[in-house]
Amino acid sequence: MDIINQILQGDIRATARLMRDLDEGEPRAREVLKELYQYTGRAHIVGLTGSPGVGKSTLTDRLIQQLRQQGQTVGVVAVDPTSPFSGGAILGDRIRMQRHATDEGVFIRSLATRGHFGGLTASARAVINVLDAMGKDFVLVETVGVGQDEVEIAGAAHTTIVVTVPGMGDDIQAIKAGILEIGDIFVINKADREGADRTFQDLVTMIEMRQPHQAEDGWRPRVLKTEAPKSLGVPELLAVILDHRDYLRREGGRNLARLMAPRLRGELVDLILQSLREKILPRILAEASLEQTLADISARKTDPYTVSEAFVARLFNTVVSG
Amino acid sequence: MDIINQILQGDIRATARLMRDLDEGEPRAREVLKELYQYTGRAHIVGLTGSPGVGKSTLTDRLIQQLRQQGQTVGVVAVDPTSPFSGGAILGDRIRMQRHATDEGVFIRSLATRGHFGGLTASARAVINVLDAMGKDFVLVETVGVGQDEVEIAGAAHTTIVVTVPGMGDDIQAIKAGILEIGDIFVINKADREGADRTFQDLVTMIEMRQPHQAEDGWRPRVLKTEAPKSLGVPELLAVILDHRDYLRREGGRNLARLMAPRLRGELVDLILQSLREKILPRILAEASLEQTLADISARKTDPYTVSEAFVARLFNTVVSG
Repeated sequence: MDIINQILQGDIRATARLMRDLDEGEPRAREVLKELYQYTGRAHIVGLTGSPGVGKSTLTDRLIQQLRQQGQTVGVVAVDPTSPFSGGAILGDRIRMQRHATDEGVFIRSLATRGHFGGLTASARAVINVLDAMGKDFVLVETVGVGQDEVEIAGAAHTTIVVTVPGMGDDIQAIKAGILEIGDIFVINKADREGADRTFQDLVTMIEMRQPHQAEDGWRPRVLKTEAPKSLGVPELLAVILDHRDYLRREGGRNLARLMAPRLRGELVDLILQSLREKILPRILAEASLEQTLADISARKTDPYTVSEAFVARLFNTVVSG
Repeated sequence: MDIINQILQGDIRATARLMRDLDEGEPRAREVLKELYQYTGRAHIVGLTGSPGVGKSTLTDRLIQQLRQQGQTVGVVAVDPTSPFSGGAILGDRIRMQRHATDEGVFIRSLATRGHFGGLTASARAVINVLDAMGKDFVLVETVGVGQDEVEIAGAAHTTIVVTVPGMGDDIQAIKAGILEIGDIFVINKADREGADRTFQDLVTMIEMRQPHQAEDGWRPRVLKTEAPKSLGVPELLAVILDHRDYLRREGGRNLARLMAPRLRGELVDLILQSLREKILPRILAEASLEQTLADISARKTDPYTVSEAFVARLFNTVVSG
C-alpha cells in the first residue's frame, strides 16, 4: 500500500490523515494499522503524568527541545484536556507550542478525554504504534494522572515520569493512592518554589519504603528537581530517561520484555472486548422492546440488573450450547 | 429476604455487608440489589467534582453537617483517591471525618479508582441505589473531575456541583474542556483567596455564553463562593441545591424524567457490556493458544488487531449465522 510507505518514510500529511481516519473508525485505517504493526517496537515511549497545573506541558516542550538538539525525532501524544498540546489552554501557551509545528522531526497528536468513551486507551495505543512505525525515536505521552484511563495510558509507556510541584500535599496523597507504583522517575517541577526540598525528601522516603520489595537488579526510581520554563534540570532528566532506557534494553532487552509481556496481554484483552462492544452495541439499541423496557425500569416494575442478565443469556444461548 | 428488610430499615451492618459482597462480586449480593431496586428513586443525588486540592471533602463534610441540622439523612459515595472519605488523605483529615461515623443518619462508602477497571461507574451506581433504597434523603457523590469515569459518575447525579478555587486557570481550562456541560452549580471554594471575584466573573461569563442554546424554562447554572472550613456559603449552597431539586421535580417531575431517560439507557447498555465482559474474559484467558499468540505479536509476526478480530469472529460465527 502506498500509504504504508508514505508513513514509514515519515510523511506528515499521510500520517495525519491516517490518525483522523482511525479517530473516525474507518475500517480501512484499521487495515493500515495492522500493516504498520510489524514496523513498531523501535521507539522509546515516555509517559508524563501529574495533576493539572504542575507544568507537564512546559516540561514536555523542553524535553522535545532537548531531544531535537541531540538529533532525535519525537512524537507527542497529548491526552490531557488542560494541555496546550491538546488545544485546551490559553492562546499564549498555544502559540508557544506552535514552534514545533514547523519542525519536521516532531509530530504532535492530541486525543480528547471526552467523546472516546470506552476507547481512549485503545486510541492512544494506536497513535503510539503509528508514531513508532513512522520512525520517531521517542514518543512522549502526556496525561493527567488522576483518572483510570490516564493511569492506564501512562502505563503503556516504557518510562513513566510522574510530575508534581513543591508542597502539593494532595498530590502526594494521589501518588500514594496509586501512582507511586507506575513512576520510574519523579520530577518536582517549579522547584524554585518553597518546600521543594521537603517534597524531594518525602518522595525519596516513599520510594525507599517500597524498595525492600524490589529485585536486587531492579530499577530504583529517581527523583529530580526541574524548573521547566528555564530548562533547568531538563538535560539531567533526559539523562535519567536514557539511563532507564539502557536498563530496559540491557541483556538483550530482558527487562523490557518482562515489562511488556503482561501489558501486551492486557492490550489484547482490551481490543477483544472493544470489538465485542462494537458488534453488540447496535444489537442492544435495535432491540424492539428497548423503549418499553426502559419505561418498566423507570416505573420500578423491573430492574436494570435483571434486564441486562436476560439480554446476555439470550445472546449466548446459541454459543454456549453449541 | 431478611437482609432486604434490614437494609430498608436502614440497618448499617447489613448495608455494609451487602456493599462488601457487591464489591467482591458475590452473585447473592446482586440478587439483593435486584430486590432493592423497586425501593429506589426517592433520594436526591448530588455529585461534587473538581481537581485535587480544591477542598471538595471539607465542603462535603460541611454539607453533611448542614443537611443533618435540617433533619435530613445522608449517604456519601467517595470515588476520589485524594479524599479523606476514601481513606486516601493524612491522618488529621481522616479523624475530622470520623465525627460522622457515630451518626446513624450518615452512611459513608468509599470506592477505589484502581482495582475496579471497567466497573467503577457500575459500582458507584450500585452503591447509590443501595443508599437510596436504605432511605437516605440525600446521596452525595464525591469524585475527582478529570478522568472519564469520574465525569461519568458525576453525571449520574441529579444535581452536579463543580468545585474550583480562585485563580485556578488550568482548572477553568479543564472546565471548558468538558465539565462546563455537566455543572448545575459552580462553587468557588477558598473564596478568601486572591482572585475569587475574577474567577466568579469568568464562570458567569462562560455560563452566559452557552445560555443562548438553553431552553427558556431551563435551569440557569448558578455560581457561588464558599469558605468550607468556616462553613461560609454552605447554607446558601444547600439552598441552591434545593432550588435545583425543586426545578427537577416541578410539574410531576418532567425535568427529572427528561434528565434521567438517556442516563438509564446508558446504564443499561453499560450493564449489558459488563455482563458480556464477565462472560467472555475467562474464555479469552483460557484460550490454549494465547501464550503462543502473544509471542507471535511480540515478534511482530502478527498484530493484536488481527488477532482480536479473529477471536470475535470465531465467537460470533454461531450467533450471527443462527
